[in-house]
Amino acid sequence: MKNNMEILIDRILESYVTIGGMNHLEGHNLPSRQSIIRIVDDLESVLFPGFRDEESLNRSNYRYIISNKIAGVAERLQEELSKSLCYFNGNTKKKTDNGNSDIRAEKIVLKLLKIFPDIRQIIKSDVEAAFMGDPAAKSHEEVILSYPGMEAILVHRIAHELWIEGAPLIPRIMSEYIHGKTGIDIHPGARIGKYFFIDHGTGVVIGETTVIGDRVKIYQGVTLGALSVKKALGNKKRHPTIEDNVTIYAGATILGGNTIIGRGSVVGGNVWLVSSIPPNSKIYNKPGHYTLKSNAEKIQDFQI
Amino acid sequence: MKNNMEILIDRILESYVTIGGMNHLEGHNLPSRQSIIRIVDDLESVLFPGFRDEESLNRSNYRYIISNKIAGVAERLQEELSKSLCYFNGNTKKKTDNGNSDIRAEKIVLKLLKIFPDIRQIIKSDVEAAFMGDPAAKSHEEVILSYPGMEAILVHRIAHELWIEGAPLIPRIMSEYIHGKTGIDIHPGARIGKYFFIDHGTGVVIGETTVIGDRVKIYQGVTLGALSVKKALGNKKRHPTIEDNVTIYAGATILGGNTIIGRGSVVGGNVWLVSSIPPNSKIYNKPGHYTLKSNAEKIQDFQI
Amino acid sequence: MKNNMEILIDRILESYVTIGGMNHLEGHNLPSRQSIIRIVDDLESVLFPGFRDEESLNRSNYRYIISNKIAGVAERLQEELSKSLCYFNGNTKKKTDNGNSDIRAEKIVLKLLKIFPDIRQIIKSDVEAAFMGDPAAKSHEEVILSYPGMEAILVHRIAHELWIEGAPLIPRIMSEYIHGKTGIDIHPGARIGKYFFIDHGTGVVIGETTVIGDRVKIYQGVTLGALSVKKALGNKKRHPTIEDNVTIYAGATILGGNTIIGRGSVVGGNVWLVSSIPPNSKIYNKPGHYTLKSNAEKIQDFQI
Repeated sequence: MKNNMEILIDRILESYVTIGGMNHLEGHNLPSRQSIIRIVDDLESVLFPGFRDEESLNRSNYRYIISNKIAGVAERLQEELSKSLCYFNGNTKKKTDNGNSDIRAEKIVLKLLKIFPDIRQIIKSDVEAAFMGDPAAKSHEEVILSYPGMEAILVHRIAHELWIEGAPLIPRIMSEYIHGKTGIDIHPGARIGKYFFIDHGTGVVIGETTVIGDRVKIYQGVTLGALSVKKALGNKKRHPTIEDNVTIYAGATILGGNTIIGRGSVVGGNVWLVSSIPPNSKIYNKPGHYTLKSNAEKIQDFQI
Repeated sequence: MKNNMEILIDRILESYVTIGGMNHLEGHNLPSRQSIIRIVDDLESVLFPGFRDEESLNRSNYRYIISNKIAGVAERLQEELSKSLCYFNGNTKKKTDNGNSDIRAEKIVLKLLKIFPDIRQIIKSDVEAAFMGDPAAKSHEEVILSYPGMEAILVHRIAHELWIEGAPLIPRIMSEYIHGKTGIDIHPGARIGKYFFIDHGTGVVIGETTVIGDRVKIYQGVTLGALSVKKALGNKKRHPTIEDNVTIYAGATILGGNTIIGRGSVVGGNVWLVSSIPPNSKIYNKPGHYTLKSNAEKIQDFQI
Repeated sequence: MKNNMEILIDRILESYVTIGGMNHLEGHNLPSRQSIIRIVDDLESVLFPGFRDEESLNRSNYRYIISNKIAGVAERLQEELSKSLCYFNGNTKKKTDNGNSDIRAEKIVLKLLKIFPDIRQIIKSDVEAAFMGDPAAKSHEEVILSYPGMEAILVHRIAHELWIEGAPLIPRIMSEYIHGKTGIDIHPGARIGKYFFIDHGTGVVIGETTVIGDRVKIYQGVTLGALSVKKALGNKKRHPTIEDNVTIYAGATILGGNTIIGRGSVVGGNVWLVSSIPPNSKIYNKPGHYTLKSNAEKIQDFQI
């Protein structure tokens, strides 16, 4: 076997040269997915100190422990940002870009730290929205510790800030990590107001140019998507606008960059919408037409 | 950078005091999500000894290895239960509640161990149901080792017992851990009979007060949900009852606490039901109305 | 507690004998799920050297590092394959089957290594399809590092080769591991052409006997499933055929082994299809009937 395998491995190695394209061999320029995942986990535990970690926090030690954790995650994030900025500035072959990426990365991290208290404030509003919006929620602690929609919006709020600052690649790695964990796919470009609540969440898709107001509630399987998938439209608003106080029930699909769901509206389950509806609307599918057979005899067609 | 960052970190630390609400700094009272996850994994490997772990088990050593594993997981579960009971009894500030939570936690763990053989028996029925219900299943081993629906129902059966005993928070952390892994969201309050099979499973939602009989089969994307989401209804039956021998195909939505799907019924794919159907019914959407265009020419509207 | 717990543990141990069926105590014959997961991760990092791992690769060291990694993963895969072949040949009780399983396992691994460059070539086409097919994709690197559909098809292409070679159980463990990570459930039996792209992906189900041509694009929540679930039909073609250049939008369901979606066709969102459509068709649900109420007054029934 030895010889056969050596030959086959050599052919695989050759394929990296001949097929190329997908392999990046020039060192550490690309951010590491593993590092980003650890950064996300650490940021979560700094947003909710004492909830996600196993260390015991108390009034006397928490300043020390959390200061260290924040400083550590800031340093690692800056390193990955610098790699990513350098790579996408076309400096993949050079060892350096005269420190430009380092400087930009530091600025982004300091900006993020600066608004961190505001992010905590808005996430507090999300916790409240989940607790009030779900009759099954028994406590705020349950929301924070177990609701997947909570984890999705929390990481989105950080990824979105990095997106705004123009950080390449890293916000998308963050959002896809949480998509994998929760089944909730929020593009980091989406703008989302406060008191936001996603219940259950599996299958939710929120596209890049979506705009969502305050106090919006969304259920599992809701898509806020694009009508056209032409690559050339990459920079246009392709996804809908959801105004304040809107509720969208499970499985509804709302498509298009010009589609506006007016404030205070309710979109029923499985509704398929490609045009706007005015404020305070309620839109439901008309009662379904079913064929009901009982004991193998067809007894009626009926509407429910 | 040093100085800037120190200032920013100080502001974040202050925000834990001023914003508060979401951070729990008084030590180890809340159960640890990481510990619960390890407990779930260990319980799985004790339910299926020799399947999930890497140690080699044989007739001579398995009593020793598994006894130790059961005793260990029981001890850790008791510790987390005690924390959780103490916390939600309002004893968050005190170091102790005179051992009341410890005593209650021990009782819950002993109860769980007592019915463990019964849980294994009913999970055996679930394995059989999956094997018989899926033409693609090649062996019972495949079902146990790879079916996400299997893992979801297995963990649910344990979480549900803890739920019945009134354990706060921990059953929900368990169910959301498995929701993340499988895309199947079963609230620990749901009552589910034997020979239960969820195929594929992504997007399934089964609400808190759902009641499901024996030999029920459910496909991906099925929601058994609530009609109203008023917080005040938190203790009422808000989710449907599914009687014995019912099959519910992919994407069907069944809502409401008074909705009963009579035994032996079949609910077709994508059906939307908010009222009861009698036993032995078959309910399908009427053939869809489509617009079919071929070669860019519209050739017909048709039903299929 | 000691005594009580000992008694209860003894009863659990007894249940392994009396209930039996689901526990496999005779050692290491079954493949280990943990090992398969590590093998999948290593195969991914060999398909994309320098993308998934943290080591620094450069032109001088990569031959050494990757050779070692390939040889290591090949060895571990061979070991798991051998266990699995031996187990399902009914040799669960014997320590050996005279090396037949070892020989077969080696052949399968050498075959996989032989076609590894071809698998890389076809995955390169998948990366290209994702980049071209999604206006939100900013770079090939983003596709490789963050798209769940990319990870799903990549692992499927390996699992499918093992499936073709008749490897029991392992391909299914691989596909369900990725199903758990991405929400995309592709049975290893499915045959899928090049330039394949799944966008978002949560809730996608692709059944065992599905056949998919080249340049096919699929969105979240699409099911390519079976009409009948009779166990006896286990070997028949039960799932549809999707020809070249077909696009299937979110939530569409296509069922049945005789259903053929002709090349160049477009299947609209939420369409439910159980029969064939000719080449170059576009099939959409007719505009939905909605009830729209505004300001709590019903103003119109309308179509959109």
